[in-house]
Amino acid sequence: MRHATLPFPSRVFRRLTAVMLVAALLPLAAQAAEPPPNIVVLFADDLGYGDLGCYGHPTIRTPHLDRMAAEGMRFTEFYSAAEVCTPSRAALLTGRYPVRSGMCHDRFRVLRRQSLGHLPDSEITLAELLRDRGYATACIGKWHLGNFANEPAGHPLEHGFDVFFGLPHSNDMDPAPAAPKGAPGRPDQDPAWWNAPLYRGTELIERPADQTAITRRTIDEAVAFIEGHADQPFFLYVPFSFPHVPLFASAEFRGRSPRGLYGDVVEELDAGVGRILDLLRARDLAGRTLVVFTSDNGPWLTMNEQGGSAGLLREGKGSTWEGGMRVPAIAWRPGHVPAGSVHRGVATALDLFPTAARLAGAVVPADRPIDGIDLSGALASNEAAAREAFFYYRGATLFAARRGRFKAHFLTQGAYGDPQPKRHDPPLLFDLQSDPAERFDVAAAHPAELAALVAAARSHEASFTPAPSQLVATVDEPTALAPPARAAPAAP
Amino acid sequence: MRHATLPFPSRVFRRLTAVMLVAALLPLAAQAAEPPPNIVVLFADDLGYGDLGCYGHPTIRTPHLDRMAAEGMRFTEFYSAAEVCTPSRAALLTGRYPVRSGMCHDRFRVLRRQSLGHLPDSEITLAELLRDRGYATACIGKWHLGNFANEPAGHPLEHGFDVFFGLPHSNDMDPAPAAPKGAPGRPDQDPAWWNAPLYRGTELIERPADQTAITRRTIDEAVAFIEGHADQPFFLYVPFSFPHVPLFASAEFRGRSPRGLYGDVVEELDAGVGRILDLLRARDLAGRTLVVFTSDNGPWLTMNEQGGSAGLLREGKGSTWEGGMRVPAIAWRPGHVPAGSVHRGVATALDLFPTAARLAGAVVPADRPIDGIDLSGALASNEAAAREAFFYYRGATLFAARRGRFKAHFLTQGAYGDPQPKRHDPPLLFDLQSDPAERFDVAAAHPAELAALVAAARSHEASFTPAPSQLVATVDEPTALAPPARAAPAAP
Repeated sequence: MRHATLPFPSRVFRRLTAVMLVAALLPLAAQAAEPPPNIVVLFADDLGYGDLGCYGHPTIRTPHLDRMAAEGMRFTEFYSAAEVCTPSRAALLTGRYPVRSGMCHDRFRVLRRQSLGHLPDSEITLAELLRDRGYATACIGKWHLGNFANEPAGHPLEHGFDVFFGLPHSNDMDPAPAAPKGAPGRPDQDPAWWNAPLYRGTELIERPADQTAITRRTIDEAVAFIEGHADQPFFLYVPFSFPHVPLFASAEFRGRSPRGLYGDVVEELDAGVGRILDLLRARDLAGRTLVVFTSDNGPWLTMNEQGGSAGLLREGKGSTWEGGMRVPAIAWRPGHVPAGSVHRGVATALDLFPTAARLAGAVVPADRPIDGIDLSGALASNEAAAREAFFYYRGATLFAARRGRFKAHFLTQGAYGDPQPKRHDPPLLFDLQSDPAERFDVAAAHPAELAALVAAARSHEASFTPAPSQLVATVDEPTALAPPARAAPAAP
Repeated sequence: MRHATLPFPSRVFRRLTAVMLVAALLPLAAQAAEPPPNIVVLFADDLGYGDLGCYGHPTIRTPHLDRMAAEGMRFTEFYSAAEVCTPSRAALLTGRYPVRSGMCHDRFRVLRRQSLGHLPDSEITLAELLRDRGYATACIGKWHLGNFANEPAGHPLEHGFDVFFGLPHSNDMDPAPAAPKGAPGRPDQDPAWWNAPLYRGTELIERPADQTAITRRTIDEAVAFIEGHADQPFFLYVPFSFPHVPLFASAEFRGRSPRGLYGDVVEELDAGVGRILDLLRARDLAGRTLVVFTSDNGPWLTMNEQGGSAGLLREGKGSTWEGGMRVPAIAWRPGHVPAGSVHRGVATALDLFPTAARLAGAVVPADRPIDGIDLSGALASNEAAAREAFFYYRGATLFAARRGRFKAHFLTQGAYGDPQPKRHDPPLLFDLQSDPAERFDVAAAHPAELAALVAAARSHEASFTPAPSQLVATVDEPTALAPPARAAPAAP
């Protein structure tokens, strides 16, 4: 199913041209023997590096994700591609730093409810790439790459997904007038304050959505999509709306976790992941499906008890310290990804695009820079990937860079609430392997490494012109949404 | 073998009387069917809560301990019984808070090289209790419960151990005059600075000991002890001298860990644990041996890169914040301890004494308070243990108390370097399950819990008179030790 209106039909052709140019080079015969694997990306929202049992959390119980790690590969140095939500998602779906697509901004940070901008049509998403290879595609969860109520071209159905079910943006972005200012994180919150709009395709089916049911319904929809596509390759992208605040858990999970409401919410996500993996096992799809679980950025520490934990890492969401961008990541494909393996090299959400492309027999677009690297070798044999450098942006500004074990901070700033960046000249230098908590500046001891990082950052910045930001333009008056509706949930 | 001199022979009789009184009540018949299990306690020095792979460390590789956890039980809320070395060891071996034995002091904190005091003979150690049940007993590693070069009554052979091999105290306590002040933690250190004395029984066999060989030789000795006692119940206590600074790794491990020298040292310990577990498996002793791995206190954070990590927990060694006393702990006995289990209740090093007693068919002494509780049920079925409260001492002063999920701080003080304790009235109150990092004081919201903790602490303090400290008296002139010797290591 495609969205009814296609405001810019010409972009379909531009997109196809780019893909077809490189597709011509594809050794199709070599791929014919075995159908390409399904790709499932389970993407938590604001889950911190330290928030899962298999990453050391003492009181959040995540037996399904722990089992997923025991049966698959756990990454210790996996990065989200940005420090906050919108740019992180744009980068995951395009394999490109958000400055290339304009999906970031120093001040606005993320798309807002009144935003007109969206993921530009000129961007090629992983959904588009895989759909062109015959995959069925679904986005089930929180989109946050365009409020399509304001601008239909921002809808996921316009960006390669056959199916959409979920929220257009974060679960706190449409507050009712009654909502107290600064209320996210209050345990006594009223669900109606948040007024979250829930869509099926382009249809608003519920507003305010019952956020206590969102995780279950997200999983229900994902399960139904898998059930409906067991005989066709599929790409299932499940960007959970939690544990972003405001937090809500269903009656089944509420009050169960020792960690409190945050733990309830994470444990419900964990159970949902378990349902998906159990279904893949039961349908004999496990060996034919690569599942990746990760998070869009670090924990929202300023939400106090309702924010997560980065474990031993410094800072959280919004910052370019490790806690802001290093996240849990688990890859699973029994028989293909070695069971119980731990991948210790740097890997990033940028890499999912070229990795999935390789597995699907697609070729990444050659007409634009792709910042991710192919991890299929790492997934198959835990070999080291040939990464040159990774760049940490805060908004549209390059704050830090990593190469090998060393990370240079050119600018630092705490998470939300730290008003000004601090410039470092010479930059701070940390050895992230011996000092993962970023406590000891070793710039003086490693001048060559520091110089190499400065050069890499300069070269990166000189290599392109950032795209105009999509995060600035707004509707004068937010588009009138349909009146609050509370339709019964559709059958899964 | 017993030590040649027994300065206070009468204490043997006192000890025996106490044990025999209660032994008379023992249902021996019920124990006859199955020989009691061997007990092995592997006790790291200054290893932090976050320092193992299975506790979330990103760059320290501990495959053997991770496997031990996968085959056994991992504890998330296990406490050392004290915040520093000497009291922690005294409590582990007696099941009693160190204030009861006098093995603590607010200023001195630990026994020093010139100390005359030692574990009082009136204390009944786990080694004594188990030896009376027919166990062979060995202490292989760092003692630190009496510098027997000053006072022979402080020797492990005087406290229930048949065999001793190791250091009398910490590996930094006998520095040569050439050692720079404050040198622990320097990566360029000269092994000879530390002048560590190595004993076999009562014989000084090497000084300075080659600290790069200590871990391997400790394991060699432990292996030889197990090999020599496969047909007799044994209690093997292995208090490693590392990762206490100064750090040394063997040539095989040096420079191998991404975490640097600290990682090298922990990875060498991990490999040593692997050798012991492999031997137990190979000798068909796995199901007949309870192995417990834990640490004497939290990481020595002021040692910078050479100190460990408490993960998400606050502070480290020397403090009564969680990072000072909550430590990794893994229990292993295939077929008896459920594989892959996670025990989430509070457990402590105090509990090893009554737990091992129960497993050995011994009865704990009834003539004195024992602070530990029997965890044998928890080990067998992961059931909750019936703990009333746990008390956190800094030196001989009660700083904090825990009951259920709540912890009250009456006093707080950082680790080494924080000169004065700060008194809190009302006390701080933390919910350690929802807030393991101790960030949010919830005293105002939980007055009843706070009152209960205050009452528990008052009742505890009123119930006994602390014993005179053993940590004050010193020789005027430290006993002249034998001249430096560098004997070839004995065959393992």
